[in-house]
Amino acid sequence: MAATSVLTRPRKQSRDATLQKADSLLAAAAVLIAEKGFEATAIRDVGRRLEVSLGGMYYYFASKDDLLFQIQHRTFTALLAEQERIAEQPGTPEARLHRLLTGHLAFFARHPNEMKICTFELESLKGDFYDRVLVVRRRYFRLLADVIADLTGRRERKPRGHDRHVTLFVFGMLNWAFMWYQAAKDGPVEAVAAEMLDLIVHGAAPRKRR
Amino acid sequence: MAATSVLTRPRKQSRDATLQKADSLLAAAAVLIAEKGFEATAIRDVGRRLEVSLGGMYYYFASKDDLLFQIQHRTFTALLAEQERIAEQPGTPEARLHRLLTGHLAFFARHPNEMKICTFELESLKGDFYDRVLVVRRRYFRLLADVIADLTGRRERKPRGHDRHVTLFVFGMLNWAFMWYQAAKDGPVEAVAAEMLDLIVHGAAPRKRR
Repeated sequence: MAATSVLTRPRKQSRDATLQKADSLLAAAAVLIAEKGFEATAIRDVGRRLEVSLGGMYYYFASKDDLLFQIQHRTFTALLAEQERIAEQPGTPEARLHRLLTGHLAFFARHPNEMKICTFELESLKGDFYDRVLVVRRRYFRLLADVIADLTGRRERKPRGHDRHVTLFVFGMLNWAFMWYQAAKDGPVEAVAAEMLDLIVHGAAPRKRR
Repeated sequence: MAATSVLTRPRKQSRDATLQKADSLLAAAAVLIAEKGFEATAIRDVGRRLEVSLGGMYYYFASKDDLLFQIQHRTFTALLAEQERIAEQPGTPEARLHRLLTGHLAFFARHPNEMKICTFELESLKGDFYDRVLVVRRRYFRLLADVIADLTGRRERKPRGHDRHVTLFVFGMLNWAFMWYQAAKDGPVEAVAAEMLDLIVHGAAPRKRR
């Protein structure tokens, strides 16, 4: 079990204020880490941005590794919670997938630094921290894989082989958006999600050749 | 114009030996940068790996920025050259796209560190270095976009809007492979490329529902 921080230790008072402060610190850390990389970011620099001493930083985070873990775990947990609510809403597989694609892109647009870190710094997580983030990532993969299995009509099988790959292709489309998506140029996320859905459901060949 | 290195300056003798040594240094640098990130990698550490002094490193590279530029520019130039040869071979749009998808995945499998750096450290390139890499990246984008336009039957139009997005979705599928592809688990790149092609051409919905 990795060292825990004040965020995961039970506390009697001012837990709200602590969490709020931790949120600001995590957001500031995400900006720095997304820009410079985890290895090159010092926990002291994160504190400096918000005028928190090094000692203060260690009140909130047990270590620099814990800080990185908190960013990734909280980001994926928040994304999963939002997407689980969306997935529960009734509809055809196409309609549900469209809502999930939109939800993912919208979440990414709101948290670009955090999502970039989840991709670029996944391997910077060690041991128990890595495993705990992986549990949440796998639940999220499963969520999308299930809706894709509804779409392909192969719900009963585990998403191995082909279906697993289709799900990974869809995650690729979604996550690569950080390289190019700009609302002003590419339009609202709902529209981009609709184009993505069209490719996933129907493919790109012209109708007559199908 | 950014500072140039010995690699881009004309030289009279032992150019082959210089290029060969530079290749080893670039490969060693790619391992370090892919692991630690560009910001956290010192040019001195790269030299140390191959027993080249700091002064020696500056014989091969004008600066640390030049080193990063050389990795990205040479990687994309090599990928583009291979894929241009593949794209020239005759065939249906489907057959040509399958060969290009295979070619991209195979190149990635041979150069994982370099490709990771091209994605993660694109924004670490500055000014002229960034622009020169962008020229090659755009030619490669165009290459794939043209074959996709042949597939969709919209060859005459510029790949704006929908076709541009479809191409970006395909790049997402391809480039996200660095997060999951393992030959032992996922099979040969040709087979993965065939699954990708099937999704791009036909979509994932079962045939009866089309």
